[in-house]
Amino acid sequence: MRTLNVAIIGQNFMGKAHSHAWSNAGRFFDLPAKPILKVAVGRDQATLRDFAERWGWQETASDWREVVQRDDVDVVDVAVPNDMHAEIAIAAAEAGKHVFCEKPIGLDADEARRMLAAAERAGVVHYLNHNYRRTPAVMLAKQLIDEGFVGRIFHWRGAYLQDWIVDPDFPLTWHLQAERAGAGPHFDLGSHNVDLARFLVGEISSVSAMTARFVEARPLPGAGAATFSAGSGGSGEKGPVTVEDAAFVVAEFANGALGTIETSRFALGRKNHHTFEIYGSDGSILFDLERLNELQVFSRHDAAHVQGFRTVLATESVHPYIDAWWPPGHVIGYEHGFHHAVVDFVHAVVDGTPLAPTFADGLRETLVLEAALESARSGRRMEVEPA
Amino acid sequence: MRTLNVAIIGQNFMGKAHSHAWSNAGRFFDLPAKPILKVAVGRDQATLRDFAERWGWQETASDWREVVQRDDVDVVDVAVPNDMHAEIAIAAAEAGKHVFCEKPIGLDADEARRMLAAAERAGVVHYLNHNYRRTPAVMLAKQLIDEGFVGRIFHWRGAYLQDWIVDPDFPLTWHLQAERAGAGPHFDLGSHNVDLARFLVGEISSVSAMTARFVEARPLPGAGAATFSAGSGGSGEKGPVTVEDAAFVVAEFANGALGTIETSRFALGRKNHHTFEIYGSDGSILFDLERLNELQVFSRHDAAHVQGFRTVLATESVHPYIDAWWPPGHVIGYEHGFHHAVVDFVHAVVDGTPLAPTFADGLRETLVLEAALESARSGRRMEVEPA
Amino acid sequence: MRTLNVAIIGQNFMGKAHSHAWSNAGRFFDLPAKPILKVAVGRDQATLRDFAERWGWQETASDWREVVQRDDVDVVDVAVPNDMHAEIAIAAAEAGKHVFCEKPIGLDADEARRMLAAAERAGVVHYLNHNYRRTPAVMLAKQLIDEGFVGRIFHWRGAYLQDWIVDPDFPLTWHLQAERAGAGPHFDLGSHNVDLARFLVGEISSVSAMTARFVEARPLPGAGAATFSAGSGGSGEKGPVTVEDAAFVVAEFANGALGTIETSRFALGRKNHHTFEIYGSDGSILFDLERLNELQVFSRHDAAHVQGFRTVLATESVHPYIDAWWPPGHVIGYEHGFHHAVVDFVHAVVDGTPLAPTFADGLRETLVLEAALESARSGRRMEVEPA
Amino acid sequence: MRTLNVAIIGQNFMGKAHSHAWSNAGRFFDLPAKPILKVAVGRDQATLRDFAERWGWQETASDWREVVQRDDVDVVDVAVPNDMHAEIAIAAAEAGKHVFCEKPIGLDADEARRMLAAAERAGVVHYLNHNYRRTPAVMLAKQLIDEGFVGRIFHWRGAYLQDWIVDPDFPLTWHLQAERAGAGPHFDLGSHNVDLARFLVGEISSVSAMTARFVEARPLPGAGAATFSAGSGGSGEKGPVTVEDAAFVVAEFANGALGTIETSRFALGRKNHHTFEIYGSDGSILFDLERLNELQVFSRHDAAHVQGFRTVLATESVHPYIDAWWPPGHVIGYEHGFHHAVVDFVHAVVDGTPLAPTFADGLRETLVLEAALESARSGRRMEVEPA
Repeated sequence: MRTLNVAIIGQNFMGKAHSHAWSNAGRFFDLPAKPILKVAVGRDQATLRDFAERWGWQETASDWREVVQRDDVDVVDVAVPNDMHAEIAIAAAEAGKHVFCEKPIGLDADEARRMLAAAERAGVVHYLNHNYRRTPAVMLAKQLIDEGFVGRIFHWRGAYLQDWIVDPDFPLTWHLQAERAGAGPHFDLGSHNVDLARFLVGEISSVSAMTARFVEARPLPGAGAATFSAGSGGSGEKGPVTVEDAAFVVAEFANGALGTIETSRFALGRKNHHTFEIYGSDGSILFDLERLNELQVFSRHDAAHVQGFRTVLATESVHPYIDAWWPPGHVIGYEHGFHHAVVDFVHAVVDGTPLAPTFADGLRETLVLEAALESARSGRRMEVEPA
Repeated sequence: MRTLNVAIIGQNFMGKAHSHAWSNAGRFFDLPAKPILKVAVGRDQATLRDFAERWGWQETASDWREVVQRDDVDVVDVAVPNDMHAEIAIAAAEAGKHVFCEKPIGLDADEARRMLAAAERAGVVHYLNHNYRRTPAVMLAKQLIDEGFVGRIFHWRGAYLQDWIVDPDFPLTWHLQAERAGAGPHFDLGSHNVDLARFLVGEISSVSAMTARFVEARPLPGAGAATFSAGSGGSGEKGPVTVEDAAFVVAEFANGALGTIETSRFALGRKNHHTFEIYGSDGSILFDLERLNELQVFSRHDAAHVQGFRTVLATESVHPYIDAWWPPGHVIGYEHGFHHAVVDFVHAVVDGTPLAPTFADGLRETLVLEAALESARSGRRMEVEPA
Repeated sequence: MRTLNVAIIGQNFMGKAHSHAWSNAGRFFDLPAKPILKVAVGRDQATLRDFAERWGWQETASDWREVVQRDDVDVVDVAVPNDMHAEIAIAAAEAGKHVFCEKPIGLDADEARRMLAAAERAGVVHYLNHNYRRTPAVMLAKQLIDEGFVGRIFHWRGAYLQDWIVDPDFPLTWHLQAERAGAGPHFDLGSHNVDLARFLVGEISSVSAMTARFVEARPLPGAGAATFSAGSGGSGEKGPVTVEDAAFVVAEFANGALGTIETSRFALGRKNHHTFEIYGSDGSILFDLERLNELQVFSRHDAAHVQGFRTVLATESVHPYIDAWWPPGHVIGYEHGFHHAVVDFVHAVVDGTPLAPTFADGLRETLVLEAALESARSGRRMEVEPA
Repeated sequence: MRTLNVAIIGQNFMGKAHSHAWSNAGRFFDLPAKPILKVAVGRDQATLRDFAERWGWQETASDWREVVQRDDVDVVDVAVPNDMHAEIAIAAAEAGKHVFCEKPIGLDADEARRMLAAAERAGVVHYLNHNYRRTPAVMLAKQLIDEGFVGRIFHWRGAYLQDWIVDPDFPLTWHLQAERAGAGPHFDLGSHNVDLARFLVGEISSVSAMTARFVEARPLPGAGAATFSAGSGGSGEKGPVTVEDAAFVVAEFANGALGTIETSRFALGRKNHHTFEIYGSDGSILFDLERLNELQVFSRHDAAHVQGFRTVLATESVHPYIDAWWPPGHVIGYEHGFHHAVVDFVHAVVDGTPLAPTFADGLRETLVLEAALESARSGRRMEVEPA
C-alpha cells in the first residue's frame, strides 16, 4: 500500500489532536494511502520526545526549516500558534510538500495571500483545518441545503461563545496578544463561524461590527503556562491585552441573506458554544457544537399539525462519515472531525479529490474578519474586499 | 370598594387580551380598586356589540374623542394600531385620564415626545404595555440582576423571531405598511426586545444595524382581512411592502456591555421566539418566550463540578406574581402578563406605586430603534440621541 | 340565549380553577348556552362569601343537599375532596342534575359503580374532570393516533412525579390519609395517567405493582392548613401516614402493549411532571405537562437522514381548541384545560355531543388502580376486573 | 516500561471497540504498563488478518484454547457473543490470565457462578465491561452520591430503549435466539441498566416484571448477516424469535428505594436511549446516554428562587477522566468509556487497584435479571437470590 510520510510542527493541543487523527483515521476508514508518522518537530526537546513516543512519531527534530526540505516528507502538518503559520506553510509549499494547516490561516490577509500564492505556484494540496465542517451533523446541514430542504436562505445566526477568560486573573497568554494571535475571539472563534457561514450560505459581501474589551491588563504568565488554564502566574506583573474580548458582527451575504457572527470569551456557562441557525423559505437548521451529534431541522412541508424542529441524531449509517464508526445512537466526539479531515486530505493527495477549505478559503474568510475589525474601528459598514 | 372606570379603544387581538385582564385580574389578585369595564369603543359597531357583551363592557361607543372626555371614565386603554396611539393617548391625557397604552408607543420619537409631554403635563399615570416584562421568569431575571447574581454585565443577546409572512402570498396587512406601522419587526418585535434590554441591562448608547426586505410586493388584502392569517385575498392586485422584513442590530450599552437585537418575520419554525441571553461576571441568564415559565441561570459560584445552566420553572410561590395563580409546576400562559400589568397599573393609579415602562421609556426605546434604522440606511454607527 | 345554572360545591384549589372556567369559557368560545354562576356551596361562610364575590357566584349556601334539589340548578360541579364525591354526585344525579365532577371519581370502585349507576339511571350528563385530556397537545396526540401516525402501539411509559412532601415536616394533610384520599399519588396522580393511557392506548388488562412509603408519620396540621404548603404546624404531635408515597406499576394492555405508570411525591425537582411516551410501529409521541404546549413526535416515514423527534408547538390554529385563544407561539397554561372541559360539557348538555371521560371511565380507571394496589399488597400480577 | 501482552478473542463490533481502546488508552493516559496488542483470535481468517493489520495486533490465530495457554499472553479479552463468554473466560482464568470480558457475563447465573469461581481460584483480575460506568458523567453521578448531594435515595428510574428491530423483516440474528443470547433486551440492555442501578443505588432485593414479544418469527439471516443492519436476507424462510422484545421491571432496593428498569428494542426514535433518574432527599440526578457528556442535577439546597435542574457539561478538568482528553466543552463520545476501562484495568493488574464491575457483579446482576424473567413467567414478585 502506498504510504504518505507526514511531518508535524507543533506538539501542544493541536499537535495531540492531529496526531490522534493521523494514527487512527486509517483504522476506521479505508484510505488510499497509509499515513506514516515520520517526524515531529518542536522546540522543547524533552517534551517532544515523550510526545513522539506516545503518538508513534518515528523521529523528532528541532528545526522545521530542515524538515520541510526532507525528501522523505510528503506532508507538512502546521500545528503551531498563528504567527508561525505563514512562514512554515510557505516554506513547505515551496519545498513541494502538501500542507495540512491548522486554522486560522495566519495573522492577516497579506499572509493568507502569500500562503495561497505559494501553494498554488507549487501545485500542492493545501488544506486549512476548519475541523467543524467535517462534523457529520454539519455535513448533513450542507447536504440538506444542497438538496433544497432549506430553499432560499434568509438568515444566518452564528455564534461562538466561550468563558475561559472571564476571570481577570487569567494570564496574558499568546491568545491575548495581537502580534501573536492577530485578533481575539474574532479570529480564533470567528474564523470557524465565518468558515461555516461561507460553506453553508455563501460569500459575505459587507459587515458592520462592534468589539469590546472587558479586561485591559492581565498577569504575565509564568514560563510554560499552559493553554486554557490559569496557571500559577509569574511575577505578579501585568501586561496589556491587545486583542478584543468579544466581537459582534452583522453581515450581508451576496445572495441577500442577513446574518450575524457573534464571538466572545466572556459568556459564562458557554464552554464551546459554536452555534448556527439557518432560516430559509422552505426549512430551517440549527446546530450547537456542545451537542455535536445533533442537528435540528424544520420543514414547512411537514403536515401543518406536526410541524416542529426535529432533533436528528446524526449517528445513522446514512449520515456523513458515520458508517465507519459505531451503531446508531453511539455518539462521536470532538476529535472525530480531525479524523475525517485526514481521510479527505489523504484522498485529495492521492486521488486528487477536491478538498476544502483551502488557503483560498482562508484568504476569503480573513478578508471578512478584517473588514469587520475595520468596521468596528471606523464605525462604518465595510464592503468585504474581493480576494 | 373604590372603582376605576375603564374605556377601551380597540376590539381586535389586543382588545381581547386587555379585556380578559381587566375582567379577571381582580379575581386572582387583591386590587385596591375594582376595574369597571365601562365602555368599549370601535369602528365596526356590529362586531363591537358582540365584543362588549362577550367581555362584559357595559356600553359601546363609536367616537373615541367623545369617550375620552366623559366624566365617568378614569382610565383610557389604547388598543388600536400604532398610527392612532399618539392622538388618542394625548387626548386622553389632556382630559385627565390615566392611560394604559399598547406598545409600541407610536410611529416615531416625535409622537413619543408629544405623548410623554402631554401625560406629564396632565400628571396622569401613563403606562406602555410591554407585557413581557411582567412574565414571572423575566421579573425573576430582574430580581437576580438586582441581587448581584449576574455581576457586571458583558453581553445582551436579544432576538425576536417569527415566521408568519414567509409565504409571499401573505397579504399586505397594516403591519407591512410604513405609514401605519412605523417600521416592520424592528418596531413590532424589536420594541419588546429593546424594552427588556433597557429593563435588565440599561441604556443603549450606540448601534450599528442592517435591515433586509425579502418580499417587495404582496397581495392587497380583501376587506376585513384578519391579522396573522393569510386571508382569502382580494382582487389579485399587489402593493409594495414599505417596511423591513428583518433588522439585525449590534448595540453598545452605556455600561460597556456589547449586545445584539435581532428581529425577523422570516425565521421558519419560530412562532414567538422572543429570547435573550445575558452574560455577566458572576452568572448568566437565558430566556425564551416560547417556554415562558422557564428561566435558565448559570452561576460561577456553584461548586466547580456541578456548574451548569439550571432550568428554573418559575412557578413557585417565591416567584413574582405566582402566588396568585396555581400550585408549583402548574404553568401559566401568554395572557397572564396582561393581568399582571393591570394589577400594577391599578396600584399605580390608586396608591401611586411607581410603574414602568412609561411613555418616557417608550420615547427612549424609540430613539434606539430609530438610530438603528438610520444606521441601516447610512451604513454608519449611530449614537442614540438623548431623550 | 339559553342559560345553564351552575352550583359549585367547594371553594379551594379546584373551586377556583372551575370558577375561572365557568366564567370565562364563553368569552373565548361560542357556547350553545351561557353558564350562570348561580350558587357556591361551602362550609366556611366567611371565606365563601369572598370566593363568591370574587368569581361572580350570585349566591352562597352552606347545605349542598338542599342546593342539589333546587329547581333553578341545572349543573352540579363537585369540587371537594375525594371522600365526598360519591355522596354529592349521586344526590345530584338523583335530583336530575348534570354532574361535573373533579377527579378522581371517589374512594374506590364501589363508589364509582354507584355513581355511574345513579347517573345512568337519571339520564344526566356525567363528566369526570381529567382536565389534562383537553390540553391541545394531548388532544393532538389522540388525533395522531387516530390518523395512524403511530401505528400499532407497543409501549406506554407514563409517569406523574411531584416533590411537595419530600420534607418530612410537611404536615399530615387529607391527601396523606387513606380514609379521605383513598390512596396517595397512585390515586391522585395515577388516575390522571391511567386516564390518558386508556384514552390514547386502550384498556389495561393486567398489572404488577410495588408501592413505597418513605415517611411513616407526619406532624398533625394546624387548623386551616393550606393545601400544598407546609403550614406552621399545630401541636407538634404526629400522626401516621396511611397512603403510599410512590407507586410503580407495570401494565399490560388489551391490545398487547406493555406499559408503566409511575407516580411519586418524592421526586425532587419534579413539580408537575406528568409525562407519557408512546411507541408504535410507525411513530412515537412524547409529552411532558411542565411544557404542556409542546408535543414531541417521531415518524419513521420521514426521510432516513432527517428522522428525529419533532417538537411541535401546539399553538397553531390547526391544533385542537387553539383557534379560540391567541396567535401561534402565544402559549397557554394549566388552567385552559378547564375551560375546554366546560366548553365540551356545555355542548354535551345542550347538544348531546358525546363527552368523555364519564363515570364509566372513572370506574374503569379505578379498577385498574385498585388492581395495582392489590398487586402491591399480594405480590401477584392482577387481572383488571371487568367494569 | 513494563508491558502487558493482550490476546483478544473476537473481531466484530466489540473487537473493534476494544482494539481501539487497547491501542490508544496509553496515548492519552499515563499507564503503569504498556499494553501490547499481541494476538487476535477469530474464526474467519480472511477478515481477521485485515482486522489485525488495521488495529495493530501482532499476530492472528484461530484456536482460542491454544492462545489462552500461551506464556506470552497476560490478558485475555473476551469480545465474542454471550454464549462463548463462560467457556473462554474460565479457560483463561484457569491458565492464570487476567480477563477483560465483554458484558453481559454469560447466558445465566450458573455460568456467572462458574466464571467467578474460576477467576477467584486463579487469583486473576476479572473485569466485566459495563463501559457506561466509565462515562465521565456517570462517574460524576457516583461522586455526587458519595458526597451526599442526593441524600437518601428514594427512586431509580432506569430505561434502555432502542428501535433497531421494529421492522418485522429484520432478520433473526443471534441476538434474537435464546440459546445464544440468553434473553433479549432484558439481558443485552438491561444488564447495563442493572449495573448502573447497583453501582449508584445499591443491591436490588425483589422484582416484579412483565415482558412482551411483538414479532414472533423473523427471516433467517443470510450468511454473514451483519449486526444492527437488516441485511439482504437469505432464503425467505422464517424462524421463531425466542427472546422477549421488551421487559419492564419494578424493583425494590435493599435500602428501600423503589425503582424501574425498562428495556425495549421497539421504541421508535430511540437509538441508544440509556437513561436513569435518581431522586433523593437532597437532590436528583438525570442521565441520557445519547447526550453522554451531560448530567442533569437538582439540589434542594440551592436558593429557593433559583432551584432547577442544571445541565452540567461534564467536560471540565475537574470531571472524572476528562483531564486526559480535550479542553472544556470539547465533547467526547461513546468509545471513550472503553479507553477508561482499559486504563483502570491496567492499573488493577499492575498496581492492584480495586476494579469493578467484576464477575461477582456479573453474577449479582444476572440474579436480578433472572428473577425478573421468572417474575414475568410466574406473575409473582420474586426475591433476588443471594449470590
